[in-house]
Amino acid sequence: MVQKIAVQDMYPDDFSHCYGCGRLNSAGHQIKTFAHNGQTVTGFEPDPAHIATDDFTYGGIIASAIDCHSTGSAAIFWMRENGLGIGSPAAPRFVTARLEIDFIAPTPLEPFTLIGTADEVAARKVVVSTQLQSREATTVRARAVLVKVADPRAFGTPRPG
Amino acid sequence: MVQKIAVQDMYPDDFSHCYGCGRLNSAGHQIKTFAHNGQTVTGFEPDPAHIATDDFTYGGIIASAIDCHSTGSAAIFWMRENGLGIGSPAAPRFVTARLEIDFIAPTPLEPFTLIGTADEVAARKVVVSTQLQSREATTVRARAVLVKVADPRAFGTPRPG
Repeated sequence: MVQKIAVQDMYPDDFSHCYGCGRLNSAGHQIKTFAHNGQTVTGFEPDPAHIATDDFTYGGIIASAIDCHSTGSAAIFWMRENGLGIGSPAAPRFVTARLEIDFIAPTPLEPFTLIGTADEVAARKVVVSTQLQSREATTVRARAVLVKVADPRAFGTPRPG
Repeated sequence: MVQKIAVQDMYPDDFSHCYGCGRLNSAGHQIKTFAHNGQTVTGFEPDPAHIATDDFTYGGIIASAIDCHSTGSAAIFWMRENGLGIGSPAAPRFVTARLEIDFIAPTPLEPFTLIGTADEVAARKVVVSTQLQSREATTVRARAVLVKVADPRAFGTPRPG
């Protein structure tokens, strides 16, 4: 069963203004990533304006979803590796060092799901592989290298997702 | 001198709804890419909401800018290779097959410039390398593989950039 608290909702306030996943950015996408059966899951619902051509989702929006899904996944995988629960106030924060995206097929302009797998979990670096699933097909594959932020400063108040 | 017509303004109407660079998408970024001294140049002005953390630009927005800059650059480089002027109504259209982005340093939340270089120009494939310049420093490097769309269908009315 998908856990009810998104990792992004555990980020400290200072890290919660991100246009992609910040719960305090009312203009942003507010992307939410959950731990699920050893992997991570992020749902994303594109706006009608997020079109590429025809009825396909714009690649930059897909890249945005993958970016925040990957940083969130890195935090989830790192916490699992280090014995911290998803709701821990000591949730670490990761930033993207490298993002590789293969657009295998056009992605329909409708809700899609990202599934993340941990390829590597080190003390300060996590590598996440992601598949974008749309209509039960994989249209995009990605690999991200995430680096742990050394000083996450003050932690905000945890809020349920 | 930078040419006055952005390659995106030569795209046919059917390809001008893109959230990143479509001139017909009023909600989108309307990214414009120009030929310049054998390279390509795209300026981008992030909104205040396009924040990552602190005063830095969100990676997904940077990826979006690079995506459309790269497809536009591919068209420019392909036209140059094939002896077509930037204003040609036969402007080809490219889509992104692979995108690699290295975030070297945080990018300030202020206007930045993308500079594109042609690494490879083949009949149906173009490879573009890009540097993001902010405050005269390179904060992001990217490489994109673009594939030519076989049938660009009807061409729209060219509009000056």
